[in-house]
Amino acid sequence: MFDIQEIRSQFSILNQQVNGKPLVYLDNAATSQKPNSVLEVWKQYYTEINANVHRGIHTLSQLATEEMELSRRKIQKFINAKNDFEVIFTKGTTEGINLIAYILTQKLKKDDEIIISYLEHHSNIVPWQLLCERTGAKLRVIPMDENGVLQLDYLDQFLSEKTKVVSVNEVSNALGIVNPIEEIIAKTRANSDAYVVIDGAQSAPHFKIDVQALDCDFFVFSGHKMYAPMGTGILYGKQSILEDLPPFHGGGEMIAVCSFDQTTYAGLPFKYEAGTPNVGGNIALGAAVDFINKVGHENIQNHENALLQYAQKHLLEIDGLKVYGENANRTGVVSFNLIGMGISSDVGMILDKMGVAVRTGHHCTQPIMDFFDIAGTVRASFAVYNTFEEIDLLVEGVKKAQRMLA
Amino acid sequence: MFDIQEIRSQFSILNQQVNGKPLVYLDNAATSQKPNSVLEVWKQYYTEINANVHRGIHTLSQLATEEMELSRRKIQKFINAKNDFEVIFTKGTTEGINLIAYILTQKLKKDDEIIISYLEHHSNIVPWQLLCERTGAKLRVIPMDENGVLQLDYLDQFLSEKTKVVSVNEVSNALGIVNPIEEIIAKTRANSDAYVVIDGAQSAPHFKIDVQALDCDFFVFSGHKMYAPMGTGILYGKQSILEDLPPFHGGGEMIAVCSFDQTTYAGLPFKYEAGTPNVGGNIALGAAVDFINKVGHENIQNHENALLQYAQKHLLEIDGLKVYGENANRTGVVSFNLIGMGISSDVGMILDKMGVAVRTGHHCTQPIMDFFDIAGTVRASFAVYNTFEEIDLLVEGVKKAQRMLA
Repeated sequence: MFDIQEIRSQFSILNQQVNGKPLVYLDNAATSQKPNSVLEVWKQYYTEINANVHRGIHTLSQLATEEMELSRRKIQKFINAKNDFEVIFTKGTTEGINLIAYILTQKLKKDDEIIISYLEHHSNIVPWQLLCERTGAKLRVIPMDENGVLQLDYLDQFLSEKTKVVSVNEVSNALGIVNPIEEIIAKTRANSDAYVVIDGAQSAPHFKIDVQALDCDFFVFSGHKMYAPMGTGILYGKQSILEDLPPFHGGGEMIAVCSFDQTTYAGLPFKYEAGTPNVGGNIALGAAVDFINKVGHENIQNHENALLQYAQKHLLEIDGLKVYGENANRTGVVSFNLIGMGISSDVGMILDKMGVAVRTGHHCTQPIMDFFDIAGTVRASFAVYNTFEEIDLLVEGVKKAQRMLA
Repeated sequence: MFDIQEIRSQFSILNQQVNGKPLVYLDNAATSQKPNSVLEVWKQYYTEINANVHRGIHTLSQLATEEMELSRRKIQKFINAKNDFEVIFTKGTTEGINLIAYILTQKLKKDDEIIISYLEHHSNIVPWQLLCERTGAKLRVIPMDENGVLQLDYLDQFLSEKTKVVSVNEVSNALGIVNPIEEIIAKTRANSDAYVVIDGAQSAPHFKIDVQALDCDFFVFSGHKMYAPMGTGILYGKQSILEDLPPFHGGGEMIAVCSFDQTTYAGLPFKYEAGTPNVGGNIALGAAVDFINKVGHENIQNHENALLQYAQKHLLEIDGLKVYGENANRTGVVSFNLIGMGISSDVGMILDKMGVAVRTGHHCTQPIMDFFDIAGTVRASFAVYNTFEEIDLLVEGVKKAQRMLA
């Protein structure tokens, strides 16, 4: 039973006025709000058991360790990883992708190739550009068509024995387009030995993830976009690959034996978790997984897809409004402009005056903006707590913006 | 007016029983507890203004940005940095040191030298070993004497035009020894062009920091050891140096212009803050600074030093108890063993049964343990909320452990 009012009641922050109007929070692709259960678990951690983990034998340290490791196993199930030690705690997607790009440095040489797509966030572009600088490898980019759909025949052409990495997102943050990652992975496996990296920042909040079914080598996502606090995230990596690659950060927790002459490294997951982890945050991430499981993936996806279709239908009734990726398979995001009417931030500011929070600008995807020859878009993005009435307020606001900017 | 009971009342977690005894938390060098004001600021952030920062024009995003930047300026004052943009948010000390070691890669070549000390935490050893692996540089280690005092005449011998980095901690986490960093920095400046890195993880909770007076190039510390949540930390770097060095992580926030052909980077501090920051945590770190300022550095230092002297005096009355670094200038930590009586964890487990939480083992400083030819120590470490009565319970517990292990 999906009860939207019951769900909304779990998010205290939604119950407020902004600029004298009820808050309509439609900036979920930037960060989602957090249910009270997640905040409560975090606070309980700090008022009852806070301690450093793994290295202590006193009671609080043992409790903190148990709770964090329980959270790791929740996340293991959430993404269907084979082993809990394949689940590495990070501070977010950006750190996850950079970590992978750094530990792959020794595996690449001059003229090797890294394939990404036109639909990537800067966090899945710049780390690879930096890796290319370090190694002399080259970046190749799968193009998209006018609808934002990746043209996979180019992937066929690009793949070769030179291909060392293929890294794509499952869902585009700027447009909400769902990429055919199963097909991308199948093509990659058939035509190269490349490492496959999936940026799940925008899919983990919406879909059921199954890293074993996908057969990707790495899967990264952020906690803060899926109802958990900021400063949390996950890097999944296949055991054999993580065991083969070198460490990233050096420090406490990640060593087996440390001497000035020689240091050897701990096993997974500790090898990649140097330093004190964000224990409270990592436990709260487990609570966010509990929240999602309780609501149910199917309920979330059905509701969000209904919101998206409703929003797109009513927005497209506005004369001169263009939705980017209108006909593509999408989730959670509608990205649009009022053609010929100011810039996206003008629309965003008018919406804000009406209490409607959307993101405007390039959404850290300048190549997509360049492709469409625009500076930015207005992006409304949805979470499980959004309502059809909120979409009505969005549409009404856009109409008002159109009148004001005319 | 320093009122210990008023201070303790701000830490709900202290008011509990562990194993049927009142909790005596003496593991503060691993992580401190958090005052209610810090937890409240964090919760308020998530129940009132949570949003992604810097990229949004809607009201919540602007509020979140303002609050995080206000926190940055509080931290700027806390360490007396010249500019707020020299204050980079990290997830902790370990990330800070690793970040520095990565961005210095291009500055080092074969046979260059990096100087650290025998008193370092693994997090100030392994990142430099990894940098040596990348560049062919060599690690040199300032030795210590039987009292844990660094022998700075070796530093004089080591320093040369080959020296590219000198990285030492201000306070040793394992022994609590306060290193003469002013002298180390003066010697380094006089005899090399090396970058000076100070690991302040164990000093920031106890001392007033002044990075301009120190004239260090980098200063790093963790939030979670100074009353802030885990997953927070600071990298201070001098403007001219941070501007000269390359970025670390690529991603959102840190670019000026991103295209597949060429990407240019944003100015400070954003160049080093790729990805969504831990906004709630970073704001809470500002609240921890407020807490410290309100109690007062002098009060904190006087109280903690009195605790240390009281603890050392009464522990040394126990026959066969050895304090490591007994006669050195120390703060916040007493590290000891009952000679010939089991291992440190035996003592730790008995103390835990009495509600006393200490750390045992190598404290991520295996070289120090090797120097003393021991597997580990029992470490009691103090924060502003600890009391003399708690020290009495510690001493009583150690005496009981001695009887039980005899």
